[in-house]
Amino acid sequence: MSGQETIGFVGTGIMGAPMARNLAQAGFGVVAYNRTAAKAEALREHGVAVAASPAEVGQAASIVITMVPDTPDVLAAVEGDDGLAGAMAEGSVLIDMSTIAPGETRALAGRLAERGIAMLDAPVSGGSWGAEQATLTIMVGGEPETFERCLPVFEAMGTSITLMGPSGMGQTTKLVNQILVAGTCASVAEALVFAAAQGADLLKTVEAVSGGAAGSWQLANLGPRMAQRDFAPGFMVKLQQKDLRLILEAAQERSVPLAVTSVARQYLTAAEAMGLGEEGTQAIVKAMERLADVEVRQDGGG
Amino acid sequence: MSGQETIGFVGTGIMGAPMARNLAQAGFGVVAYNRTAAKAEALREHGVAVAASPAEVGQAASIVITMVPDTPDVLAAVEGDDGLAGAMAEGSVLIDMSTIAPGETRALAGRLAERGIAMLDAPVSGGSWGAEQATLTIMVGGEPETFERCLPVFEAMGTSITLMGPSGMGQTTKLVNQILVAGTCASVAEALVFAAAQGADLLKTVEAVSGGAAGSWQLANLGPRMAQRDFAPGFMVKLQQKDLRLILEAAQERSVPLAVTSVARQYLTAAEAMGLGEEGTQAIVKAMERLADVEVRQDGGG
Repeated sequence: MSGQETIGFVGTGIMGAPMARNLAQAGFGVVAYNRTAAKAEALREHGVAVAASPAEVGQAASIVITMVPDTPDVLAAVEGDDGLAGAMAEGSVLIDMSTIAPGETRALAGRLAERGIAMLDAPVSGGSWGAEQATLTIMVGGEPETFERCLPVFEAMGTSITLMGPSGMGQTTKLVNQILVAGTCASVAEALVFAAAQGADLLKTVEAVSGGAAGSWQLANLGPRMAQRDFAPGFMVKLQQKDLRLILEAAQERSVPLAVTSVARQYLTAAEAMGLGEEGTQAIVKAMERLADVEVRQDGGG
Repeated sequence: MSGQETIGFVGTGIMGAPMARNLAQAGFGVVAYNRTAAKAEALREHGVAVAASPAEVGQAASIVITMVPDTPDVLAAVEGDDGLAGAMAEGSVLIDMSTIAPGETRALAGRLAERGIAMLDAPVSGGSWGAEQATLTIMVGGEPETFERCLPVFEAMGTSITLMGPSGMGQTTKLVNQILVAGTCASVAEALVFAAAQGADLLKTVEAVSGGAAGSWQLANLGPRMAQRDFAPGFMVKLQQKDLRLILEAAQERSVPLAVTSVARQYLTAAEAMGLGEEGTQAIVKAMERLADVEVRQDGGG
């Protein structure tokens, strides 16, 4: 029986809602809080209890997950008014599954340790599709015994779960992941703009090259969506931009130039200028199309 | 029996030699020519006959494959002194598996058609590893009936074989493939330089992120090689540079800006400046390391 621990969940947005549902479906007792209450209320029909504050979640649960947009949101949920830190019992665990700065993660873990609360940083990859299908990649930083205790919780949400190292190394790995996601997605978009300009059959082209050295998750999953003008978000442009900011800040601290990643970020900035911040990252192709004055569209192919 | 047609093979270098071997192993009679004769001679022990000129190959074979470095090499083999075109019979087929400019391919196919020789452009992806294991991706342009006739020949060398469209569309697809290969490889190298600077365990990091949205052939195959300082060529920097030249020329003709691809090319140019033109494309990481003053090396990880 996997429901021995009650799991708290703060942040039930596009990612957090399906993750909380999957925990409830796996048999865990789940109590959730969301700033916009309606998003948490919608989970009641899936057997999730709803709390009125992070503190209420912290009192009810032995393991609490935070899944919020950015560093200040995590700090507000944990250490703000009615926050988790003052309510959670000694021996409980905070799992932050948001993507935030590795340095801030390590500092927060240190402050929680003084209260007897263990912390794991456990950011994810796979987008809302991965969250819904419980196939997330989960990259964890923290102590091995805390990781072991939380493994059944992770297994209800993801399929590839790795303890990367001490506190902060989950976030570092996530940033590595996002360098790859952003750069590969940008390369896929450039390839399709080129193909469209040459009159190629776009879906056939994606299929032909997917099985070889050009293959990637981004190509297989976002290439066809670009060609079919499906810009629904698996992962939003504005959240990718936030991750790129964290990447370039962390890289700058150690004087690591990232030229490819920076170009990808500039195209995403152009997509934001077009009002596409809440579309999926595949909307990067719209910025490139505008520059090349060509449209990536399957029925425009030869 | 797949050996009904005798296959000619011009260009038995790092790619062509294993491809010719695989044809002989599949039961085809194969007659080969290479400018540096020793490379063709080495194929005799695999049952391959050796010719003294392209013309000799053209006289002996009903289907001739060219697999040479660049556009001028194809034109020399086909239309130069002792070239294929004057020797091949009406009704025979030239398959050019080199990567050359799509426009030049279409022009050559037109000239050969006047002699009654059909032509397919059939460039490949997968590198020397794919050539050796007969798992190449083969992207074909030309007439459907010619494609059908040559399919058993392709099946002896590759696993993913697609007729993309009329003459030139194989080359166009290959250039799309190379945009993806170059951009994804550059992104992998940036990710590992960042990871190394953060003290991450590089092989563990590659493994953790490979299964999700960051995953790619380049990451799975070249990421570990970068971390283990294995720069043996699957695909040489100098040949990737030639393909990038073809890509940027074809893109320029239609005014398609390719910023990510261009950055990748500049890093590869830096790798050439370091004398790494004959190393594998994963040596792009050495140019990035130099800029960041950090080494991507597994035993340097935390």
